[in-house]
Amino acid sequence: MLLGAIEAGGTKFVLGVGNEAGEILDKLTIPTEHPEITVPKIIAFFEDKGIERLGLGGFGPIDINKNSDTYGKLQKTPKVDWVDYPLGDVLKDTLGVPVVIDTDVNVAAMSEAKWGNAKDVDTCLYITVGTGIGAGAYFHGQTLKGLSHPEMGHIKVQRHPDDTYRGTCPYHSDCLEGIAAGPSLEKRWGKKGHELADDAKVWEMEAYYLAQALTNYIYILSPERIIMGGGVMKQAQLFPLIRKNVLEMLNGYVSSPYLTEKEIDQYIVPPGLTDEAGVKGALYLAIHG
Amino acid sequence: MLLGAIEAGGTKFVLGVGNEAGEILDKLTIPTEHPEITVPKIIAFFEDKGIERLGLGGFGPIDINKNSDTYGKLQKTPKVDWVDYPLGDVLKDTLGVPVVIDTDVNVAAMSEAKWGNAKDVDTCLYITVGTGIGAGAYFHGQTLKGLSHPEMGHIKVQRHPDDTYRGTCPYHSDCLEGIAAGPSLEKRWGKKGHELADDAKVWEMEAYYLAQALTNYIYILSPERIIMGGGVMKQAQLFPLIRKNVLEMLNGYVSSPYLTEKEIDQYIVPPGLTDEAGVKGALYLAIHG
Repeated sequence: MLLGAIEAGGTKFVLGVGNEAGEILDKLTIPTEHPEITVPKIIAFFEDKGIERLGLGGFGPIDINKNSDTYGKLQKTPKVDWVDYPLGDVLKDTLGVPVVIDTDVNVAAMSEAKWGNAKDVDTCLYITVGTGIGAGAYFHGQTLKGLSHPEMGHIKVQRHPDDTYRGTCPYHSDCLEGIAAGPSLEKRWGKKGHELADDAKVWEMEAYYLAQALTNYIYILSPERIIMGGGVMKQAQLFPLIRKNVLEMLNGYVSSPYLTEKEIDQYIVPPGLTDEAGVKGALYLAIHG
Repeated sequence: MLLGAIEAGGTKFVLGVGNEAGEILDKLTIPTEHPEITVPKIIAFFEDKGIERLGLGGFGPIDINKNSDTYGKLQKTPKVDWVDYPLGDVLKDTLGVPVVIDTDVNVAAMSEAKWGNAKDVDTCLYITVGTGIGAGAYFHGQTLKGLSHPEMGHIKVQRHPDDTYRGTCPYHSDCLEGIAAGPSLEKRWGKKGHELADDAKVWEMEAYYLAQALTNYIYILSPERIIMGGGVMKQAQLFPLIRKNVLEMLNGYVSSPYLTEKEIDQYIVPPGLTDEAGVKGALYLAIHG
């Protein structure tokens, strides 16, 4: 059986055709433009491929509740062209196949749990730190969702005492995303992240915020592994700083060999999958979702 | 088939015998003393009852990982007599039946999801605010656990601008439990919670902290209902204050009819089950765990 997979991102869509063994057999990357331009390209790619189901991991907010009338509809995303666009229904109706939808970060968590750096455990958290901050969680065979999908990037954090930057989030100003995503780094320090690579205080502050978030995620979710990806995490010096801050913040409260100086570098890790993570996760969704 | 159920709390143990329909047929409450006193009473209650399995919802930290060598062992609980006590193994070996273990708050979440105020949804969070603060989550048939069980009471929160109290948590000083559990109320204001019932500023500050926690839980877990129990929540004036603060903090970011002024009183609610919640949840654990 052939299956379709879509990784719908803010800057690009990755389209794939694969099989039940999880192999991607054909792939195409297209830019994210207005739906009137992007969607016909998606249809054109899939329409003669003979797929029987389609999995889609999408940027959000997106309705992922299968029982909802607006399943697969984009919600009030900052990408204004896509607000209220019924992506799921359009694909289902045009291609004539069932479409299974989850968030991009939930799909990435599932992909890492199946084929990546969490394949030896039953639970994991995937967090991306880039233009925005988002996270998805995989627990014992399913991704975490309920009322809606999690929006973990918008949690409240304590301000760093040296930070006077007011934050970029239009909803909450200085939530985690508002003070620790890529755009806030650039606005606070006046340069892009990669131009700040040698400035220690930049990464100490960034690690302080990200470690607070991870500490809360550990207390609330207790994942067996945390995978950190996204553009900002290409600054590899962040990993040891974040790990050190997490251990200090937990202060020995949670008993686990992973949460010790010796093993925390096996607990907070970069992704194991690179370019195909999203589209492979969407393929998994098509198979099992 | 007869099944045993234990709600192991910090001040009392509730012991029950029930059936697969979820009915409690026999019950006994005993105080939580030294294990050498309490455990023989538990054995005496169950040994002639003919139970085939036993479920236990216990205070923590407790090892709830079924694959662990120390499954069912108490960890570094503030109840020093119980530290490292292998409660699960003692009951299994003495009574000769399988023992299924989860935390008291996970069991309460499951119980509310099956028989209480979350029986119409598939996911819920149960939080208790009393001597300590703990929470458990139920998602699509299972309670949330991974590396260990969640310890949601220990998350970081932003200080209220008028609060100079340094906090009671021996691990983190001013984590949520350290500044919002019953003992911190008493130490900050010099009186017990129920003696402060008419002092508006007490409950405004308390609601500010609890609403921060709920806001983070909503962003991270997205439960379909939040149930708030425990001694501090007997101050019913907290509910409208917490609901109002949660809506202000979310600021419309999460799309759901529940997260509106009109419906939030159906989203953040008191428990539906009273005295038998813990022991009924433990019975459910014995049946399905």
